[in-house]
This record gives sequence, C-alpha cells and structure tokens, in this order.
Amino acid sequence: MTTSVGTQHISKQFDNELENIRERVLAMGGLVEQQLINALRALTEFEVEFAQLVVRNEPQVNALEVSIDEDCTKILARRQPAAGDLRLVMAVIKTITDLERIGDESEKIAKMAIELIEKQGPKSYYVGISALGNHARKMVHDALDAFARMDTQAALKVASDEPRSDEMYVAILRQLITYMMEDPRNISGTIDVVWTARALERIADHARNICEYVIYFVEGKDVRHISIEQMEKEISESKK
Amino acid sequence: MTTSVGTQHISKQFDNELENIRERVLAMGGLVEQQLINALRALTEFEVEFAQLVVRNEPQVNALEVSIDEDCTKILARRQPAAGDLRLVMAVIKTITDLERIGDESEKIAKMAIELIEKQGPKSYYVGISALGNHARKMVHDALDAFARMDTQAALKVASDEPRSDEMYVAILRQLITYMMEDPRNISGTIDVVWTARALERIADHARNICEYVIYFVEGKDVRHISIEQMEKEISESKK
Repeated sequence: MTTSVGTQHISKQFDNELENIRERVLAMGGLVEQQLINALRALTEFEVEFAQLVVRNEPQVNALEVSIDEDCTKILARRQPAAGDLRLVMAVIKTITDLERIGDESEKIAKMAIELIEKQGPKSYYVGISALGNHARKMVHDALDAFARMDTQAALKVASDEPRSDEMYVAILRQLITYMMEDPRNISGTIDVVWTARALERIADHARNICEYVIYFVEGKDVRHISIEQMEKEISESKK
Repeated sequence: MTTSVGTQHISKQFDNELENIRERVLAMGGLVEQQLINALRALTEFEVEFAQLVVRNEPQVNALEVSIDEDCTKILARRQPAAGDLRLVMAVIKTITDLERIGDESEKIAKMAIELIEKQGPKSYYVGISALGNHARKMVHDALDAFARMDTQAALKVASDEPRSDEMYVAILRQLITYMMEDPRNISGTIDVVWTARALERIADHARNICEYVIYFVEGKDVRHISIEQMEKEISESKK
C-alpha cells in the first residue's frame, strides 16, 4: 500500500521518506512488542535473563523515538506535507510517544520480575497476570498490524478490546487484596504484582491510543475521548 | 516575548496564530492546574464538592487538547513553519498530550477522593500525600511558567525537582504498607491511597516532560532520556 492515500508526489524521494518513516515506526513497534514479550516471559516463567535483556534493550527504544521524531520534524520542515501526508506525520509523532511508553512499562514489569524472582517463587495469582499480559500483548500486536495496513476496522476491533483489560485488571486487584488480607506478610511483595497489573492495563490503553491515530490518519477525524459506539459511527459515516 | 525567536514573519497574521496557540496552551495549563488543586483539596480537606467539580470539568480539558491539536495541524498545513516556529508547534503538540494526562490523573485522584471520603475519615498518612501533592502541583505550576517565558533555566530547575517526588512516593508507599500490615482491614481502602500517590508521581513526570519540550524549543536539542547533568551541559554549551 502507499502512504499517500492516492496523491501523486512530484518527488519520488518524498514518497521514499514517508515510506521509510512508516517502516521505522513498525521496526520500533516490533522491538517494543518483543520487550513486552520478554518482560512477561521473565515474570511468568521466572527467567531472570529475559528481564535483564529488557533492561539492556530499553535505551534502543528511547533512541528510536528521538530519531523518528527528528525524521518527522525534517519532513515537516523540508517537504511541507499536506492532507494525508501531514496526517501520517502527525499520527507517527503520536504513535511513537505511545510506543515509547509501552517500552517504559515493559521495563518496569521486567524490573519487578527481577525483584519478584529474588523474593518469592511462583504464585497462583500469576495465572491472572499471565492472562492480562497476553491480552495486552495481543492488543499491542494488533494495533501495530492495524497501523501497518492502515486498517480502520482492525483499529476499531483493538479499541473495543480495551475495556476487557480493565475488567481483568479489577479482578486481579480484588484477588491480590484478598491474598494480602490472608497474610499481611505478603503485602510488600504483592504490591509489586499490583504494579505489574497496572502497567499491563496502561499498555492496553496505549495500544488503543495507537488505533485512534490510525483512524485519524485514514478518516481525518479525531476519535480520542469518545466511546466505541461513537467511533463506529464516525467510521461508518465516512463510508457513505 | 515573541515566539518567533527573532525571525520576522511576512505575515502578521501568522504571528498572531502562533501567539494564539501559545496562549491557548497556557489557558489549558491553567485549567489543568486548577483541576489538580481541586482534586488535592477534595482529598486533603474531605470536600466532596471539589472532587465532583474536577469530574465535571474533565471534558473541557479533553476538548482543549483536541482543539489545540487541530490548530497546530492547520498551521503546519497552511503556514509551513520552519526553524523556531516549527519547533514551537512540535513543542505545543507534545505539551498538550502531557497536560491532558495531568488532567486524567487529577480526575483519577478526584474519583478516589470521593471513594475515600465515603469509606473512611482523615488519616495520619494524608500528611505525606499532601506534601507530595504540593510538590507535584508546584512542579506543574513552574513547568507552565517556564513554558510561558520559554525559560530554559526555570525548566531545568523543575526537571531537577522531579527525583524528589520519587523519593516522597517511595516513603509514602513504605508508610502505607506498614499501615496495611498493622491491620489487614485497612488494605482495600489503602490501595486507593497508593494509587493517589502513584498518580501524583506521574504528574511530576509529566511536568518534567513539559520542561524538556521548553528546552527543545529554545535550544533545538532533544533532551529526553538523558540525566539532569547532561541536560545542564547541553544548555550551557549552547550559551558559549
């Protein structure tokens, strides 16, 4: 697919630049997704090496954010994009902020995994965390897929998966509170697990944000701060 | 001060547009700061009306984000800004994302205040929350002040205040864990206080981010993901 939504650029070079930025976002997305996978693996399989790998790779995520941001600023300054091209650049600028934060949260999970592996062994409540982790990971993967194909229906599907992560989070929190109440010696260690659940719920939020930028790029409509129903309406209206 | 860093625009209208965006960011900042003040007041003075006011005003914050974002996109499309003007627009696009998230966190604090007021009375650990709240509020205020004057030294000062909020947060968390261990019946209610502390620590992070954009605008250097010492060095080098 082309990123220019049908417009023909006089400069082939400009096309290449836009395509290059899009590919770099997907590369950053791939790295961030791998960071999350490794953080979850450290946490659920008690493999400290995976957590250490996440911590080691975090600066790469930050460097990509800064570098793609620079590319976007250069394109704005030199190419003065309009319409769909401008929306693509805007969507990229916002997407990389959310990707960087998913990277941040993954690093936090990895660091908590290191602590938890040291302090305590596997616990039954990890089943809930693992399920929420898979849900969040799938949302990130599908959001990147929607971005790659600039597919609004796929984006809408991811956004509609988000409330499920809130429900899972609330259920885990309830379970963790019960666990802490049963034995107050568990409190300190369990608070770290609470943070992990919270980090996963935030990752799901960021995945939803990315989907909103996909819809913004394709439809030219800002769908932040509105309900899924309103989002669906906005998209279907533009199809008429 | 002018926002155009010494360049003369052919179009007076363009100057006005940039000045208008800057003023709108400051208005949004003022609203967000008031949201935080009211949320803290609800929490520390057990005044549920202030919390309700925060929840009521939250859509205004979101609407401002969307509207200023639109203004920025229009300027990029019509005026094709370069150099300092482009950096200002980029700084604004990022600043309003952080302001919106400060608004979000303030709303979360307000909602937790409503819960806490219903469930329990004043507790001694609120002293810590109150101190962290004041610290975060001051950081937001000073970050907006640095933005208003585009003052890198003031921005650097705010960024260097941020680690203090982490320390305060860790101390509060330790105190809250002790409190939960003393009486497991406290756990459920206390978890909400833990979230409040976390929300305040995040607000301090967002205030620091805004200061990084001020430095980016003035110096043309991206100072995210680096230490305060490196930041100081970047700024002092540009003065030579």
